[in-house]
Amino acid sequence: MSKVDTSKQAQAVLQDYEYFLFDCDGVIWLGAHVLPFVRETLSLLRNANKKIIFVTNNSTKSRSDYVKKFQDMGIEDVRKDEIFGSSFATAVYIQQILKLPQSKKIWVLGEEGIEKELQELGYETLGGSDTFYTKDGVNFDPNDESLAHLDDEVGAVVAGLTFNLNYLKLSITTQYLLKDNKSIPFIATNIDSTFPMQGKLLVGAGSIINTVAYASGREPDAVCGKPNPSMMASIMARNPGLKANPRTGIMIGDRLNTDMKFGKSNGLDTLLVLTGIETEENVKNLREGESPTYYADKLGDLFELLQTSEQ
Amino acid sequence: MSKVDTSKQAQAVLQDYEYFLFDCDGVIWLGAHVLPFVRETLSLLRNANKKIIFVTNNSTKSRSDYVKKFQDMGIEDVRKDEIFGSSFATAVYIQQILKLPQSKKIWVLGEEGIEKELQELGYETLGGSDTFYTKDGVNFDPNDESLAHLDDEVGAVVAGLTFNLNYLKLSITTQYLLKDNKSIPFIATNIDSTFPMQGKLLVGAGSIINTVAYASGREPDAVCGKPNPSMMASIMARNPGLKANPRTGIMIGDRLNTDMKFGKSNGLDTLLVLTGIETEENVKNLREGESPTYYADKLGDLFELLQTSEQ
Repeated sequence: MSKVDTSKQAQAVLQDYEYFLFDCDGVIWLGAHVLPFVRETLSLLRNANKKIIFVTNNSTKSRSDYVKKFQDMGIEDVRKDEIFGSSFATAVYIQQILKLPQSKKIWVLGEEGIEKELQELGYETLGGSDTFYTKDGVNFDPNDESLAHLDDEVGAVVAGLTFNLNYLKLSITTQYLLKDNKSIPFIATNIDSTFPMQGKLLVGAGSIINTVAYASGREPDAVCGKPNPSMMASIMARNPGLKANPRTGIMIGDRLNTDMKFGKSNGLDTLLVLTGIETEENVKNLREGESPTYYADKLGDLFELLQTSEQ
Repeated sequence: MSKVDTSKQAQAVLQDYEYFLFDCDGVIWLGAHVLPFVRETLSLLRNANKKIIFVTNNSTKSRSDYVKKFQDMGIEDVRKDEIFGSSFATAVYIQQILKLPQSKKIWVLGEEGIEKELQELGYETLGGSDTFYTKDGVNFDPNDESLAHLDDEVGAVVAGLTFNLNYLKLSITTQYLLKDNKSIPFIATNIDSTFPMQGKLLVGAGSIINTVAYASGREPDAVCGKPNPSMMASIMARNPGLKANPRTGIMIGDRLNTDMKFGKSNGLDTLLVLTGIETEENVKNLREGESPTYYADKLGDLFELLQTSEQ
């Protein structure tokens, strides 16, 4: 493991890889703010004809939502096909791996991001952001009609992060997971326990999924977010060069247990940035085999260090 | 293991024990209906001067609520001190085992039953059924004031079943569990994954608790419901004769993994009734050591079989 802190190191990283995979939160931006020299670094990579791929576990947004978010942050040239969110990976998994017929419906415990991606692939969704299931707010009526009348056309249950949570939605999800001898496929967008927001750790997708998993006595049949392999399968399906030789790619992220694990376990090199969760002290204390290929104070150093050398 | 299906067997059960511990749902009643000959069986026991103890994991009700429920069902003579609910056991645990000073407050993820029992022991509660935390219904604002301003006087977190669930309550609970280096005691009323209601299995306390446990990276420091020992410790503290000789007691319930386990692991004999979760086929297939002492079609058989013999 070496730290990217000289122009020579930065130059080496730029030359050695063709595919640059980025986690977003803690790498590209922090909350609502782009991190320093990220725009310039991305431009540098585009000018060198590198392939840029954004990989995010946030399932509340669709790829189109992400394109807009990049634009709002002044990063204009990001294309939808460069974005792999866990909601998109989930939809691709259901279509290509599960091969669920389009005549089947999908029950969603989650937000609009998942619904949009599933609908874009031709599936009808139930639950999700439908306000029908929140018409009574946080009140619960055990005689609620929707608990008694499950839809026999539901062929998959997708669970992820949702803020508009109530007991009714959790209980309906549990009924679908128990239905037909627990045979309806159970797909998790990702299993992050928490995520950072406004300086606090809030309840993540994995924590919500745990509720319906424990209630139904089931574990998800597939998890589509980092560090699980289905996300990389989806990326490689669209990037044959990376599939042929994973070493042509580098995964850049701020978390050891998701981003770095995701890159490493799929054969890519890795670069950890210290603008998110991990500290330099943590990184230096890692055992051999647990370390990323590189680490850097921030992603923008790739640009900034090269500027210094040219002066 | 023998089946209680003769008057001789019923007579033996009545004579051999001094303490009769009962699970309620699936034994005494099923939903809103008293099971057959339960009233008569309880009268029989009272006339024979037996000690009657009701043990329930339902934390949404206090002991006073239960007295009323028994009365509404036409079982008039149940006293508050005969009822051990998981909310009462939780309050007793916090006062007598944890020895939390009364000046400390308790954050509750749960319903009124827990609040009432804690308040009866002199504690101030936060959260729980307070509508302040559900004023926005199922909508969540990450800038919500109550997420940012935790109360430094909170000295314990109690989590149990709640129907009035939203993302804000789960996230505030997580903040308290993470606070002060995760040092605030984390007490679960019970960890049942589901419970039966209106013919369906709904999300139980354990499933909800799993959300905040996973989000905070913690397991509950104590679980106060069956089959955990703290419930029995609380019962025995009030019934010294049972403590001195657990074999003077019999635990009667409808679930192998809670009621029967609870009785057996605390040295009591056990009687499984088939009016709830388990079937006779299940019971007959149990391995040696897993079987209850007795099983019966229903609790009321204790009365009904004896009537037959007297005719």
